[in-house]
Amino acid sequence: MSGTKDFAFELLASDGRARRGRIHTAHGTVETPAFMPVGTAGTVKAMTADAVRSTGAEIILGNTYHLMLRPGPERVAQLGGLHEFMDWPGPILTDSGGFQVMSLSELRTLDEDGVTFRSHLDGQKIRLTPERAMEIQDLLDADITMVFDECTPFPATREEAAESMRLSMRWAARCREAFRDRPGYGLFGIVQGGVFDDLRAESAAALTKIGFDGYAIGGLAVGEGQEEMFRVVDVTVPLLPTDRPRYLMGVGRPRDILGAVRRGIDMFDCVMPTRSGRTGQGFTRHGILNIRNARHAHDARPLDEACDCPACRKHSRGYLHHLFRANEMLGPMLLTWHNLRYYQDLLAGLRAAIEAGTLAEHVAALETAMAEADIPPTPDPLAGG
Amino acid sequence: MSGTKDFAFELLASDGRARRGRIHTAHGTVETPAFMPVGTAGTVKAMTADAVRSTGAEIILGNTYHLMLRPGPERVAQLGGLHEFMDWPGPILTDSGGFQVMSLSELRTLDEDGVTFRSHLDGQKIRLTPERAMEIQDLLDADITMVFDECTPFPATREEAAESMRLSMRWAARCREAFRDRPGYGLFGIVQGGVFDDLRAESAAALTKIGFDGYAIGGLAVGEGQEEMFRVVDVTVPLLPTDRPRYLMGVGRPRDILGAVRRGIDMFDCVMPTRSGRTGQGFTRHGILNIRNARHAHDARPLDEACDCPACRKHSRGYLHHLFRANEMLGPMLLTWHNLRYYQDLLAGLRAAIEAGTLAEHVAALETAMAEADIPPTPDPLAGG
Repeated sequence: MSGTKDFAFELLASDGRARRGRIHTAHGTVETPAFMPVGTAGTVKAMTADAVRSTGAEIILGNTYHLMLRPGPERVAQLGGLHEFMDWPGPILTDSGGFQVMSLSELRTLDEDGVTFRSHLDGQKIRLTPERAMEIQDLLDADITMVFDECTPFPATREEAAESMRLSMRWAARCREAFRDRPGYGLFGIVQGGVFDDLRAESAAALTKIGFDGYAIGGLAVGEGQEEMFRVVDVTVPLLPTDRPRYLMGVGRPRDILGAVRRGIDMFDCVMPTRSGRTGQGFTRHGILNIRNARHAHDARPLDEACDCPACRKHSRGYLHHLFRANEMLGPMLLTWHNLRYYQDLLAGLRAAIEAGTLAEHVAALETAMAEADIPPTPDPLAGG
Repeated sequence: MSGTKDFAFELLASDGRARRGRIHTAHGTVETPAFMPVGTAGTVKAMTADAVRSTGAEIILGNTYHLMLRPGPERVAQLGGLHEFMDWPGPILTDSGGFQVMSLSELRTLDEDGVTFRSHLDGQKIRLTPERAMEIQDLLDADITMVFDECTPFPATREEAAESMRLSMRWAARCREAFRDRPGYGLFGIVQGGVFDDLRAESAAALTKIGFDGYAIGGLAVGEGQEEMFRVVDVTVPLLPTDRPRYLMGVGRPRDILGAVRRGIDMFDCVMPTRSGRTGQGFTRHGILNIRNARHAHDARPLDEACDCPACRKHSRGYLHHLFRANEMLGPMLLTWHNLRYYQDLLAGLRAAIEAGTLAEHVAALETAMAEADIPPTPDPLAGG
């Protein structure tokens, strides 16, 4: 394979261990470090695809588990594939379904060949194997396909983590075999091994021996805490090829991303900006706030003075507060939009700082501002005096 | 008052009894016949203000009752008035609260001076009088203020309708007195009288004697049926001044609008496009459909081939069907958008037909297409054979 249409990772600059790169896919390029909004069921919740694009997102994540159950991968393919289905012409990464099978489905039985489970929607019995996971993601037309793995529960004993990881490595080899290789489409392996350094090393060695277009670190952000997560990232990253993107799955909070970028991670996904937005949590340069709090009712200032999203350019905190108090859909719509813009802006700032070689100072300044926990409230002009 | 900033109605063309006009307000002009999307609580549900504008809407309706209870008119004024609060720089009409007091509130007591009721939100005791209704709409900064009236229940005896209408006429005079007149701001009277021709005539005479900037026909679309509604419109319209806009409150379905425009009505409002959109009802040139119906699951065609809204330009019926089946917010968002665009497109077509003097043929063609009740379904390529 050669030419501009190949799936490729271009390393543009670095600052310490942090990397500034670009991923080339069949549906366009992705500047890294990148944050991928989660579009679980063929939609980033409460957002049109145009709105997602306008936040600066270049790649989104789709959930194989959800789309497999409803409307079904064959249906998505019949309606033109996931890009056309949901009007997202850019790159799409799909997870393999393994994580949701463990967290959402019922009556799971695992064997060497795959997993059988019942749908959380209608109880239908479903079989998922590495080969079927590859087929589903092909039907969805994912630019980046993730190997099907067993998501090791946390906490797990060393023996449990080892057994689970080794099964995932055997499945990874079968995924590599079953993956339909096409120019611009890539397959990522997933490093497992829990919090055990030698198991992570064994997993990274197994995957790099098979050879993938990118490497994810899985099984983190599942309750182990930020310190432990960073320790595993520190152990794992040096074992991964430098010419492939590195993806820390399911991460995370803004501070997690700052730390992980400094440790050489290129890609992130998390439901936090969207899920938090729907419940009234807004991310700002000064930390996170709950717009339902009474102190925002009269506040004519935007959520974040420095943000250029529609919620901040056009509306006051008082209006957003009203929308949430009145249970109006526009509240979740605007806060989701804001939070996704916040995340994209955060990543754009990190990319610029890596290029400028000023990442350490940049991150320190961001962390200081975040620690302020919102700007001081204003007095209510209508308060009785 | 003089100059371009006056509130004024310009009659541009007519075709039979139908009129093509333009309303000038402090916040811009409105081409008539016009449909006003309903923005109950400071938001047209499931839509950003930008999206509402993009459908072609030039004026929206706000509900005094809802905004009075939450966040309160003084709060809206403190946050810059309703235009700034909800990011709608164009004209706004507010109803007076009378209709919702009757339909939503509890423990109402009516007297000559006004009405006392309990909020449906928190049981708070609230007093609304013609003077307070004018003050509230002034605080909201409505371009068009509606008089506070008693909404006559349907059915009502002749005596009930007469008594109710006469109280509303006395209140109308008090509203005219209390209304703070400013260039570009107008006050509309509301003709009542139920289904009794002589009471409608008495009401129209009382209002025109007081003198208003526009005249609404109230107390219709409350269960009397289309035929009876059109009969009352036929009786009432000739009694109203030709140099003022005529507004048929709470109407209606597309066919109601076609008939009412032919009878000389200039303005409409209805929750139907927004409320129906949230439940999966879509308006098309071929009638109304329910996108949740299984026959849409595999349909790659848009909701309406002739529509230029994002739901129709970018998505298949199959995708919209999926969104509603998966309870994704984007479903209501896209169908609301479509339905509002449908209504604006319907009104734009009526305006053009009046200008061209072809309204009768235009309406006949629309009614023929509507009677078709959706395009024929396509076979499912995935259906077992």
